[in-house]
Amino acid sequence: MQASADSSSDSCGTATVVEVSDTIRVGVNGAGGRMGTSVCNALHTDPTLELVAAVDVGATDVVVHGVQVASELRAFAEAECDVVVDFTVADAARRSLPWLAMHGIHAVVGTTGLSDDDVIALRAAFGDGPAHCLLAPNFAISAVLMMRFAELAAPYFDTAEIIEYHHDRKIDAPSGTAVTTADRMAAARGAVPWGSDPTQHEVYPGARGGVGPSGIHVHAVRMHGMIAHQDVILGALGQSLTLRQDSYDRESFMPGVLLGCKRIAEHPGVTVGLDRYLGI
Amino acid sequence: MQASADSSSDSCGTATVVEVSDTIRVGVNGAGGRMGTSVCNALHTDPTLELVAAVDVGATDVVVHGVQVASELRAFAEAECDVVVDFTVADAARRSLPWLAMHGIHAVVGTTGLSDDDVIALRAAFGDGPAHCLLAPNFAISAVLMMRFAELAAPYFDTAEIIEYHHDRKIDAPSGTAVTTADRMAAARGAVPWGSDPTQHEVYPGARGGVGPSGIHVHAVRMHGMIAHQDVILGALGQSLTLRQDSYDRESFMPGVLLGCKRIAEHPGVTVGLDRYLGI
Amino acid sequence: MQASADSSSDSCGTATVVEVSDTIRVGVNGAGGRMGTSVCNALHTDPTLELVAAVDVGATDVVVHGVQVASELRAFAEAECDVVVDFTVADAARRSLPWLAMHGIHAVVGTTGLSDDDVIALRAAFGDGPAHCLLAPNFAISAVLMMRFAELAAPYFDTAEIIEYHHDRKIDAPSGTAVTTADRMAAARGAVPWGSDPTQHEVYPGARGGVGPSGIHVHAVRMHGMIAHQDVILGALGQSLTLRQDSYDRESFMPGVLLGCKRIAEHPGVTVGLDRYLGI
Amino acid sequence: MQASADSSSDSCGTATVVEVSDTIRVGVNGAGGRMGTSVCNALHTDPTLELVAAVDVGATDVVVHGVQVASELRAFAEAECDVVVDFTVADAARRSLPWLAMHGIHAVVGTTGLSDDDVIALRAAFGDGPAHCLLAPNFAISAVLMMRFAELAAPYFDTAEIIEYHHDRKIDAPSGTAVTTADRMAAARGAVPWGSDPTQHEVYPGARGGVGPSGIHVHAVRMHGMIAHQDVILGALGQSLTLRQDSYDRESFMPGVLLGCKRIAEHPGVTVGLDRYLGI
Repeated sequence: MQASADSSSDSCGTATVVEVSDTIRVGVNGAGGRMGTSVCNALHTDPTLELVAAVDVGATDVVVHGVQVASELRAFAEAECDVVVDFTVADAARRSLPWLAMHGIHAVVGTTGLSDDDVIALRAAFGDGPAHCLLAPNFAISAVLMMRFAELAAPYFDTAEIIEYHHDRKIDAPSGTAVTTADRMAAARGAVPWGSDPTQHEVYPGARGGVGPSGIHVHAVRMHGMIAHQDVILGALGQSLTLRQDSYDRESFMPGVLLGCKRIAEHPGVTVGLDRYLGI
Repeated sequence: MQASADSSSDSCGTATVVEVSDTIRVGVNGAGGRMGTSVCNALHTDPTLELVAAVDVGATDVVVHGVQVASELRAFAEAECDVVVDFTVADAARRSLPWLAMHGIHAVVGTTGLSDDDVIALRAAFGDGPAHCLLAPNFAISAVLMMRFAELAAPYFDTAEIIEYHHDRKIDAPSGTAVTTADRMAAARGAVPWGSDPTQHEVYPGARGGVGPSGIHVHAVRMHGMIAHQDVILGALGQSLTLRQDSYDRESFMPGVLLGCKRIAEHPGVTVGLDRYLGI
Repeated sequence: MQASADSSSDSCGTATVVEVSDTIRVGVNGAGGRMGTSVCNALHTDPTLELVAAVDVGATDVVVHGVQVASELRAFAEAECDVVVDFTVADAARRSLPWLAMHGIHAVVGTTGLSDDDVIALRAAFGDGPAHCLLAPNFAISAVLMMRFAELAAPYFDTAEIIEYHHDRKIDAPSGTAVTTADRMAAARGAVPWGSDPTQHEVYPGARGGVGPSGIHVHAVRMHGMIAHQDVILGALGQSLTLRQDSYDRESFMPGVLLGCKRIAEHPGVTVGLDRYLGI
Repeated sequence: MQASADSSSDSCGTATVVEVSDTIRVGVNGAGGRMGTSVCNALHTDPTLELVAAVDVGATDVVVHGVQVASELRAFAEAECDVVVDFTVADAARRSLPWLAMHGIHAVVGTTGLSDDDVIALRAAFGDGPAHCLLAPNFAISAVLMMRFAELAAPYFDTAEIIEYHHDRKIDAPSGTAVTTADRMAAARGAVPWGSDPTQHEVYPGARGGVGPSGIHVHAVRMHGMIAHQDVILGALGQSLTLRQDSYDRESFMPGVLLGCKRIAEHPGVTVGLDRYLGI
């Protein structure tokens, strides 16, 4: 893939031209963390992607799938990475992402905690250069589609509510995914109001849930045994539509991360959210 | 059925002995109301039950499935009813039920609004006489089983929550069925506490629902197009159990009413709730 | 609405210019049938639509919401309809739809049984004339969205199956909606195969369901009490997405029919399927 | 617990009477296997149970939660176990279970593959002696309750179907749990037939699922990302009841295993199935 126009062609070793055109060379930043480890494992199972470099600030003599974990970003350049997956923390990413932009290496970023100001800075750093950047708060394709479909459906129903279900150690309610879903549905709905809440007597205060933007009621269930699940329910005369998403473990991020690695060359600049990569 | 020991054998016309042994003779009080009309229709479809009398205070020249609707309770005695189904209002039932007890006619009662004092009075009225009484706030067998199963399961899980879904004209939240379910689960659970709520930050106040007895969280959804539905979710290490009940229309009461008519002869005295008729 | 460029402006009475610009004048063909009756009722509840004509071949002295039911199509022209909703039978529609095209009246068509040849004939009849035509085999917006979302999601998952649930009088299995969903998902998926079926031993033959196009397994449940429901389930590493549609009664078609009436002026020619009207 | 009447009081060391009355002393056979390892971990988290011995035929110098894994059964006697949890293979269990009976140690058995003849032999071995035996093919309390509730509900509905969902590596369909559920529902239903299947045209052969005992239709879904789930759906006029069970990982067996350890002293002889321990 290094031979493609938007990759750094100067880093392409002549002796291996045929081989490198078959696979995308991927590095992982934060390779020692939980998500980073999962990414390394997932890359190993995909024949079109190749793990060629791994970096972790805490690394000491660790080898992942045949790759020595390094402690310095330059390992990504030395390994001639096409793309680096970054699952670190906001502070680290503020340093690594501009470095990747400068070195012409695409960045697929799952690191959380980046602000709107950070995004502005990244747009400046990546500009219209050869390296592209994908920032996705959620790489679970099923969750990304659920949110998008909720948005598309919102204008056509009279009522809508969200129920999210999480394990019994989650301290915030509702989940960030539920809040984002409600925000996007409200924006898609625009000025058309939802049907009014018929409730006159709330026998148990809070029974009708929390009220999000545009009046969408959101309910949060905390249940031992469950992981992360969400229902978006929309109703109209004589019918309802339910969009249900289930995450069974953090591996659910991996198909989205791999898809990001494969399609980032087609998406110049900084993209926020996996949606645009899904063509919807 | 009038020939059975616990029916008023003296009201059994000798000329019809053979016939009456095949079917149960049923009257309907409140035959002109919505529920009463449905009961008349449902009786008509069951070959083991026979609609022989119908009473409604507002009746004027109405004939239901070949039966002239009368305005006086004595029509039930004249038609030699084994059992009368009463779907009226509390005030009317306070008069009709003692009358039925006195005339040795079983009473299957779906009328709502009767108090604990009313039940005490009914126990006195029916005593250990030949007539029995079934008072059921909910005749939907699926709902009755859901509540009973929730009660049976409650001791074996760490967490439990209830979500009920109703049409968008319901003014109280949560529903009476949800409140009853929570009460019974709490009682079955006894002193063993549920797992503690992990929530530290309720982003939308009310998101975690209303809190019922013993700390069971209850959520109420109001949705155009839906009718009446409830999920009871119980969770433990690595697993969950969901009891889901759907009522699609008020006909859902009918199988329970017919079952009540068929089994009331076996249940002396006053029975509250359909559960005991289901042998669970 | 008659004042708009794509309506037959010559039928616009000058004295009522102000009024007609506020509402769309709608006629109903097959007004005496079950669906036609529902359409008349639904129109009556929408302030932007006005029922101005009703036709039924079997009509005799019936008045619907103040409109005398006629037996001849010309009642639609006489009432200066902008659009006619047609819920008749294929034979009748083959006559009524060209007549509407010729008279410059839009046609919103829920009549079933029209063939591909019929569609070709309709494209010729409506051409690029002032009247437009919407043919929708399914006007339930929730079902239309479910099918569209299934199509959009199909490329991003490894496995997918469909479960449809219907009342216990349905004689074909799976439903037409399930077959259409499977067809569209297969087409959207293209050449990429689904994950292979792991089943080596089918303990009960048929347990794995029927196999539709591209290997999508389809399961049909027949259940007393249910109406019409469908789950489309898609799975990938650590996650699943379920699209659930519930129809509770035939009124579920009405929001789609009314939407069709409101948006048909913007969609020249013959449109098959409500999807394009939903902007997805 | 060793001081209780039904334990082998002769193995009770006098110096530790106070302590042993507080906890139940548990051994694990097959401690090196996947299930055995999980049991050791689960015991460690329960303050009323104490892991005091671990045996595995393949053990070499392994220590589990402070307990040295032994290779001989006599480790259980030496550690004065009250109860041993056996997750081995049928051949090994045929030797270990009689040994436990002989040594007055209760046995909680999750080992699969034991035949009816094995059960007869075990009834002879345990007899009315001080040691009791619990054989449970499924220790997931949620699954045990689902099956029991399905059995209790079966007589009261007109139609019933089962849908089970498993991961995409399961080779048999439907699952053993689904087959057992159908068997038990059929037995509970007795001679009363289910409503007849309305299907006249199966567009995709197999769409209506596999047909189990008494005509219950069973559907098996195989989905990447899912683990083990089952719906039992029962329908009657205007209503349905759905019993849904979700297993998210094999830890779902642990609450049932621990419950077995705690309650086995109250259940003399050989008990098959966890149901009776749940009082339902």
